[in-house]
Amino acid sequence: MTCEAASELGVPTVVLAARSDDAAAPVASEVLVGEADDTDAVRALARRCDVVTFDHEQVDLDGLHALECEGVVLHPSVETLRVAVDKAEMRVRLSAAGIPVPGFEVLGVPGTVHDPEDVAAAIAAFAASRAEKWPVVLKAVRGGYDGKGVWPVENEVAARQVADEAALASTPLLVEAHVDIDTELAVVIARGADGTTAAWPPVETAQIDGVCREVRYPGDLDVDLAARAESIALEVAAVVGATGVLAVELFASGGDLVVNEIAARPHNSAHWTIEGSTTSQFENHVRAVLGLPLGDTSPLARNVTSVNVFGAAPGETRGPADGLSAALAVRGAHVHLYGKAPRAGRKLGHVTVCGDDPVEVRGRAWSAARALGTPVPDAIGLGTP
Amino acid sequence: MTCEAASELGVPTVVLAARSDDAAAPVASEVLVGEADDTDAVRALARRCDVVTFDHEQVDLDGLHALECEGVVLHPSVETLRVAVDKAEMRVRLSAAGIPVPGFEVLGVPGTVHDPEDVAAAIAAFAASRAEKWPVVLKAVRGGYDGKGVWPVENEVAARQVADEAALASTPLLVEAHVDIDTELAVVIARGADGTTAAWPPVETAQIDGVCREVRYPGDLDVDLAARAESIALEVAAVVGATGVLAVELFASGGDLVVNEIAARPHNSAHWTIEGSTTSQFENHVRAVLGLPLGDTSPLARNVTSVNVFGAAPGETRGPADGLSAALAVRGAHVHLYGKAPRAGRKLGHVTVCGDDPVEVRGRAWSAARALGTPVPDAIGLGTP
Repeated sequence: MTCEAASELGVPTVVLAARSDDAAAPVASEVLVGEADDTDAVRALARRCDVVTFDHEQVDLDGLHALECEGVVLHPSVETLRVAVDKAEMRVRLSAAGIPVPGFEVLGVPGTVHDPEDVAAAIAAFAASRAEKWPVVLKAVRGGYDGKGVWPVENEVAARQVADEAALASTPLLVEAHVDIDTELAVVIARGADGTTAAWPPVETAQIDGVCREVRYPGDLDVDLAARAESIALEVAAVVGATGVLAVELFASGGDLVVNEIAARPHNSAHWTIEGSTTSQFENHVRAVLGLPLGDTSPLARNVTSVNVFGAAPGETRGPADGLSAALAVRGAHVHLYGKAPRAGRKLGHVTVCGDDPVEVRGRAWSAARALGTPVPDAIGLGTP
Repeated sequence: MTCEAASELGVPTVVLAARSDDAAAPVASEVLVGEADDTDAVRALARRCDVVTFDHEQVDLDGLHALECEGVVLHPSVETLRVAVDKAEMRVRLSAAGIPVPGFEVLGVPGTVHDPEDVAAAIAAFAASRAEKWPVVLKAVRGGYDGKGVWPVENEVAARQVADEAALASTPLLVEAHVDIDTELAVVIARGADGTTAAWPPVETAQIDGVCREVRYPGDLDVDLAARAESIALEVAAVVGATGVLAVELFASGGDLVVNEIAARPHNSAHWTIEGSTTSQFENHVRAVLGLPLGDTSPLARNVTSVNVFGAAPGETRGPADGLSAALAVRGAHVHLYGKAPRAGRKLGHVTVCGDDPVEVRGRAWSAARALGTPVPDAIGLGTP
């Protein structure tokens, strides 16, 4: 979608992808086949470009740092990427800046794995030190996404089991206090290299098993909470020195806000901006990394809902394309399919609906997503169709 | 832009283009190099596609008819294309259906060229037969666009000169009554193969030297006139049996409407629908030719202005990309650059602005277009910046 936005502005894009038939290939001006964590491949990409940017975090920070030293322009920079890639770094940097995060402790020096017995003991000590005690949440310092690399544990035995598995996989861990989540929300910001920012209004997100299923603007967010979330996100952007789009995911708990995750790239929680805002996150990402003025981030409708499209149950042979006609029959449904092969649980696209009435907008977005084969989780609370 | 719309829906596109670096190449899934009027090249394209559609009229109708007989699915069909490609066919078909067109006469059997002396005599007889006499308008039956192939003539001497040149170039002619134009307007419609239609609201267009410079929704169009224009356009769509997008350009003269041109493809007069309507003309074209339900064509703002971006004066070395930053600094300016090499008078992109106040919206659209190097014609009436 970033390539599509660049294409509209007449800006050619070269994509480094693991496969020549990557979903971005048809809309990129050129595709280089290679791995994003292979420094030579990124160097070859940089030779064809003025600016290198990213749409995921599976990168080699040391290799990228070497490229920066060679004069390659990376937006976001390695310093920003480090915070987005490494949860320990993120927690340390944000809490040092006074930004609210869940209580946490890095288990050993980042990048090393301690003896699982020591790790389990440290987890137990962390739990004991906190008023709310167990459960606590263990997280892989790197590589987690969409609920992967996150383990809530109820007691020392469970903690030891995760510590054992993490040691086997050489995965450094972080322990965090469990947060009683009232609401999950996200604030997405575009920030230029000159520090100018443009924030889209905060949205309410529905995550099930750690995977984002639905994004609603403005959702049921309290106005004051939304304003505080936006101000926290702007602080985060300044602290991490982001250039391009930065997504800040927060938990609201008992009236307080804590930052859960950040992503230094266009993010699922702002796909709604393609139709729902004057300027999409993808266009503003392109503008920001090229040093162009940021576009207006005002919403274009009173209510916008975006629903992710997933592959249906295992064994289901129909893909979302088979439901395209039914989905497009839903009034105002903006369907985006990413051209990926269907697979159960794989994110294959999204649907956005804009309108006045929040219930109707949400209902239509889910109708279209359901027509495209997306299972509707009970937790979404729409009831039987 | 059709490829971009298809890409969003996850629909792969194969483009037949004269050059591998055609402006559509970066956004098409695949490019075949060949000429659109080469039947073998179109056959090779058809083998790679379920449906073949068009974005210009430089096609070989007989060759396409042969392909239809072979079972190739063309949307629009050859029958529709014939009306859009051949001005004589268009005038005859529309007037036979009772649709208002300027007074006209086909000069000889379509497809043949008469002796220039006979042609000039027929033109003089046509002028003499009409209350308003001279001037009359001569048109090439085929191949004209953007003001090319149209010659207003004031008297028999001028008519003879055009007739001589047309005979030399083997160009069959049509003579039409001169219309005193109060307003130029366009209605763009999407029509499915099943006859369902969705019309965007009529727009006012500003043509200078036969080239569209500006499109305004709703412009200064009288509500009743706009409603009649829409109803005429829907009749035209039914008469020509269009599948896909059909643009109908009309003249308003003394309260009456006549159809000037039609185009059976996405059209410059509906580029504003990308940001200005729930569904863009490009998405509805894709939907229509694939047999998918048509999307909502409601406007999203009270006023929308689209301005075409042209190459600057001859000798000017700056292209629109050099003005991108200044253009994007204009609030709400949606910039589309087509990635074409700049050349004086060449259409290189367009800018759209949506908003409440028509004067402000128009002013901002022209500011952005001017920043991109577009000369602002005096006839547009914006005055000195």
